[in-house]
Amino acid sequence: MGWIAKATAITGTVLLLTTGAASAVEVHNGAISEAEVLQAQKAWGEALVAISREHAEKGAKPARDLAAKVIDSAYGYQLGPVLFKPTLTQEPQTFRTNREGALAYFVGQDPKYPEDTGFALKGWQSVKVENAAILINGEYGTTLGKVSFTNKAGEVTTVDKSWTFKKDEQGTIRIIQHHSSLPYVAKP
Amino acid sequence: MGWIAKATAITGTVLLLTTGAASAVEVHNGAISEAEVLQAQKAWGEALVAISREHAEKGAKPARDLAAKVIDSAYGYQLGPVLFKPTLTQEPQTFRTNREGALAYFVGQDPKYPEDTGFALKGWQSVKVENAAILINGEYGTTLGKVSFTNKAGEVTTVDKSWTFKKDEQGTIRIIQHHSSLPYVAKP
Amino acid sequence: MGWIAKATAITGTVLLLTTGAASAVEVHNGAISEAEVLQAQKAWGEALVAISREHAEKGAKPARDLAAKVIDSAYGYQLGPVLFKPTLTQEPQTFRTNREGALAYFVGQDPKYPEDTGFALKGWQSVKVENAAILINGEYGTTLGKVSFTNKAGEVTTVDKSWTFKKDEQGTIRIIQHHSSLPYVAKP
Amino acid sequence: MGWIAKATAITGTVLLLTTGAASAVEVHNGAISEAEVLQAQKAWGEALVAISREHAEKGAKPARDLAAKVIDSAYGYQLGPVLFKPTLTQEPQTFRTNREGALAYFVGQDPKYPEDTGFALKGWQSVKVENAAILINGEYGTTLGKVSFTNKAGEVTTVDKSWTFKKDEQGTIRIIQHHSSLPYVAKP
Repeated sequence: MGWIAKATAITGTVLLLTTGAASAVEVHNGAISEAEVLQAQKAWGEALVAISREHAEKGAKPARDLAAKVIDSAYGYQLGPVLFKPTLTQEPQTFRTNREGALAYFVGQDPKYPEDTGFALKGWQSVKVENAAILINGEYGTTLGKVSFTNKAGEVTTVDKSWTFKKDEQGTIRIIQHHSSLPYVAKP
Repeated sequence: MGWIAKATAITGTVLLLTTGAASAVEVHNGAISEAEVLQAQKAWGEALVAISREHAEKGAKPARDLAAKVIDSAYGYQLGPVLFKPTLTQEPQTFRTNREGALAYFVGQDPKYPEDTGFALKGWQSVKVENAAILINGEYGTTLGKVSFTNKAGEVTTVDKSWTFKKDEQGTIRIIQHHSSLPYVAKP
Repeated sequence: MGWIAKATAITGTVLLLTTGAASAVEVHNGAISEAEVLQAQKAWGEALVAISREHAEKGAKPARDLAAKVIDSAYGYQLGPVLFKPTLTQEPQTFRTNREGALAYFVGQDPKYPEDTGFALKGWQSVKVENAAILINGEYGTTLGKVSFTNKAGEVTTVDKSWTFKKDEQGTIRIIQHHSSLPYVAKP
Repeated sequence: MGWIAKATAITGTVLLLTTGAASAVEVHNGAISEAEVLQAQKAWGEALVAISREHAEKGAKPARDLAAKVIDSAYGYQLGPVLFKPTLTQEPQTFRTNREGALAYFVGQDPKYPEDTGFALKGWQSVKVENAAILINGEYGTTLGKVSFTNKAGEVTTVDKSWTFKKDEQGTIRIIQHHSSLPYVAKP
């Protein structure tokens, strides 16, 4: 007598257990995919253009409302501080780790942030992302690349940009890190 | 004059930056997929059958060598303790958190583990996995379900089994948690 | 001329930037600690005893209400399926991956789960956890060990138990995996 | 008769199971701590100063050897591409996602990277890190802040810097993301 007999003696119905009808396996996967990362980048650019358009067509207040909505849905300020270094901020307000600072950066007109003129209000017509590399670690996706903004005059501004997106527990993709900078230019 | 003009003045070549040829994006994704989890379960079953066959055809020593190889490649003892509760272990050796205890469980013949008769040496012909649910969290995949083992006599033993697989930094899928138990049977 | 001079020329105020007053660093750490894992185990045991007491003192309905509250606060059913294999369940209802099945297990009296008599209603007086090993991976903590339950008669039932706790984005510790089994006993 | 009696009948020795001597719990925690993040930042600065000193005292070859050693131990190129945007790089070599590009940035003299003059060879005497915020997610720690470099002349260069450190499976802290940029300066 080996352990199988013992096991059978204990379990009794082992032979029956495998005869049940196949049932669906429930699968929950919280990881972010590369496609979701790329889509989140695209959505960020489209939101920026939308705020610019709202500003041009409806004015400052609707643009501000839209920007607030974008920040609340696309950034992760409800999860903790966001490591946000916008392109055009300066000391002592370089870093915008809270929602208020992010909103001021995008739409300006906040007396607490007197240098902010509103990055999202510059008449952006299109945004283009060119990734150099992407790291995906579970629910986090980090990207590095060039992002180019085209204004109404057709002028293009390109920045170096790092983003970390988190897929939160509700499945929403949120920016938790965002470092943007103008390219370094050596003096002649 | 807005900040774009300033930016252009600083960066100089912004208009040129976007004209480079498209280059491949490097993507590194360390997450485990559902397919990888299922494949790891299948490989575990196949390895068990292979050890049984090795034992039947070549004897104890080759079976032991193969089992050691399987443990080193399929379990994560090199990453830390493995939370392994095998089906048929008893106090005070219920848990096999180190490699030695796992090897003893699978092939027996270790004087330190006198109760172990070698789970992998029971002439297993096939292993069948029926998952109830799977959770995937980045590099970790956890499963719950029934696993059925068929021996040479065609007898089937079914256990309730939880596994957590980790995709390690080299891309190898390793078991870091494994709780197996005979089904509960109420006395009549 | 080196790049520092160029940098200085571009940045202008580099020498001033480091003279600001020290400010507090905002730190957000979502990881679960060993202490939190141990506390969550303790809380699980206390909740079980509390449901037993509620049942003894106030009856079935208050006990059920408390059990529902415990499940909603201590398990992660709102995050996805929970990989729950309770100690005393049988085919075809072995696994309780949804909230309804967990509640039936703990307090019974659900016609959909006719075998459930209510694990939490057995007059538990105390619960003791003896961990063999703990793995902590970011917001996930997985434990393996013995858990002993003492009833009013002083009888002790001990089970082998694996738990995975997740610290969710609100900081609540939730069980997302729970495999419990009676110890294997070899027939004489 | 309740399930406890049944359980006792099955398990037999339940009352004995809890009388074993207390044994140590094995704990494995792969998470990075705030202290480890801060130490890794400090070590990065010290390594930079060490390469500068090696260069001044022993010459280009020993400095290059040390830089290679630093990159191999402090960066994560063996784990995949590193999202590295150094302070002073330009198109089309802005991003240094492989080891070769990182080494060229730090010590120059690589004909494939003709613009690189060697960031680590500028006679750095000290490095100071001032974090604005830190996010810790399991084995990953991401920081945002100012980093200031002082050269032999006492001149200070300050940059905006984002780092993501990963504690790898061997417990080594590695940089997997590094975005550094000179502060934006508005033209008067």
